[in-house]
Amino acid sequence: MLGKQGAYLITDETTRLYFTGYSSTDGYLLFIDENKYFIIDSRYFYAAKRALKGTGIKAVLGAFKEMIAILTESGKSELYVDYSKTTLAEAQELSLAGFRLSDCCEEIKEARIIKSEREIKIMERSCRIAERAFKMLIPMIKEGVTEIELATALENNFRALGAKKPSFETIVAFGANSAVPHHETGSTKLEKNTVVLIDFGCVYKGYCSDITRTMYFGDKPPKEFRSAYSAVYGAFNAAFYGIREGMSGEVCDSFARDYLKERGLDGYFTHSLGHGVGVDIHEEPTLSKRGKRNFLKNFVFTIEPGVYFDGKFGIRLENTVRLTENGVKSMVTLPKRLKVIKP
Amino acid sequence: MLGKQGAYLITDETTRLYFTGYSSTDGYLLFIDENKYFIIDSRYFYAAKRALKGTGIKAVLGAFKEMIAILTESGKSELYVDYSKTTLAEAQELSLAGFRLSDCCEEIKEARIIKSEREIKIMERSCRIAERAFKMLIPMIKEGVTEIELATALENNFRALGAKKPSFETIVAFGANSAVPHHETGSTKLEKNTVVLIDFGCVYKGYCSDITRTMYFGDKPPKEFRSAYSAVYGAFNAAFYGIREGMSGEVCDSFARDYLKERGLDGYFTHSLGHGVGVDIHEEPTLSKRGKRNFLKNFVFTIEPGVYFDGKFGIRLENTVRLTENGVKSMVTLPKRLKVIKP
Repeated sequence: MLGKQGAYLITDETTRLYFTGYSSTDGYLLFIDENKYFIIDSRYFYAAKRALKGTGIKAVLGAFKEMIAILTESGKSELYVDYSKTTLAEAQELSLAGFRLSDCCEEIKEARIIKSEREIKIMERSCRIAERAFKMLIPMIKEGVTEIELATALENNFRALGAKKPSFETIVAFGANSAVPHHETGSTKLEKNTVVLIDFGCVYKGYCSDITRTMYFGDKPPKEFRSAYSAVYGAFNAAFYGIREGMSGEVCDSFARDYLKERGLDGYFTHSLGHGVGVDIHEEPTLSKRGKRNFLKNFVFTIEPGVYFDGKFGIRLENTVRLTENGVKSMVTLPKRLKVIKP
Repeated sequence: MLGKQGAYLITDETTRLYFTGYSSTDGYLLFIDENKYFIIDSRYFYAAKRALKGTGIKAVLGAFKEMIAILTESGKSELYVDYSKTTLAEAQELSLAGFRLSDCCEEIKEARIIKSEREIKIMERSCRIAERAFKMLIPMIKEGVTEIELATALENNFRALGAKKPSFETIVAFGANSAVPHHETGSTKLEKNTVVLIDFGCVYKGYCSDITRTMYFGDKPPKEFRSAYSAVYGAFNAAFYGIREGMSGEVCDSFARDYLKERGLDGYFTHSLGHGVGVDIHEEPTLSKRGKRNFLKNFVFTIEPGVYFDGKFGIRLENTVRLTENGVKSMVTLPKRLKVIKP
């Protein structure tokens, strides 16, 4: 599955899930040349064995000791591990067992960053469930409802529609809370004439979706809010129509940032434009100043410009999208225009 | 907060939460002699600043670069990090920045393993919420309900009672599914004359609870099930009454294992007896053959013996408990005797 001949040890949960399609909190995935092993303890062993049928990966009952035994038998002394996931303590254990470590972090990122047609289908379905769950939530947005009540209802909708769980802690932020990009959903009650920001997504067949919508609950949104909303919407479109194959993450980020700069709002856009999505909610590539990687066909990522006015309100507009040879294609069909919910 | 003078860098989410009481998916916690800094990006900065008021920890807007700047200014060249959490990639970055690393993993474990009176109060509350949520669920256990419906309802109860979220993916397992210790809750429907295993817990003020109950849905549990249930109940009590201060985790584990061995069932008890609980659902100490650490007053951990008959049924009985000078005290008040739910 990975390019080079040799021995690869995968210890982190999401990369294991990526290669096996099976979800567990523990276990070692071992690739030795053409042979593939999943070493897993008794809590998961029988279920893993059933799940791995037909994948060419052999389930082995055991833990660290059994994994080392397979490696030793193979005669390999060099071991590829993902340096961005392997801890110093694990590295010490492996060194003590006689293995020389090399980094395969880039190789794993490369494998995961380009999504297959199968992965794209699953992710489109994950987005579809998330947006349907969101639509079902709208009638609940009424005076007096709390942030946490909306988050709970939305997450129940995910499950009712077949998703496994939320892909991150759902953010529901009313009023000034929306000015905190990662607001912790709480017991604030919805009042009239308030901004409502909801950042949400679900996990379907192991794959995440990620969407944000900012709405207005009241009769008439104030001019200040409407004009900031237009700016964010414009920044979204600047990125959506600007991003093309071959551009770096830094260039992708600059479309939205420059657009907001022209409107004097770039100082309020305090985070990066987006991030890759897959089995992890945050993965490669990054759409930010740190993004040196060139974007390729079938990268899946978020576009999520936002502006935040501390103590007043914040606006973020986010879709999960994929890159095609004809530019960006949205995986989300929800309207992006400002939604005003009358009390 | 940690014993030695010097510079400590905490990068992992739960240890950050342990020291700050503030929950975030990113950030660096830095202790330099008496000075404490929490370096956090703009998504969290304002909220973190508010949350850290009065803790003596200074919120600093920034990321890796700003963290390194503070360290450099302090003149320290040796840096303590937790080897069990720090990745090889992070270690390389820190080495490149000129720092020599030492392991403070044991020191952090020591700090976290003995719970303060404040932590114990919070954890008792976390257990209380979990068990109340479970009691509220009982009337829903009816023919035709699915595993996932019960899990969803239970997790809604957690939130309705003031908990933040489940402390792990709730396990609801009907019939033969209960024989998989970490069964993935699915769409199996409840039928008459079936075993129902529910493993659940919630997070309250950052702290986890962990409970399992195995019930019978039907008129009369078969003898085979009843006798296995008595054996697990007996094994639970053997551990509960046997464990004392000063014993190793291996000895703690042996009470239940030996009890089941006398009944010829130890081969079906395929996991360890328990694990520490705190801000992490699994933390130190371990109650297993690998447990060399001596148990001390105010350790909080699970006692969870179980037996699993592949393709037939499984039984697990679990409470979160704490160790006192007079032995084990349960933090859970739910009855442990076999509950039979009549269809």
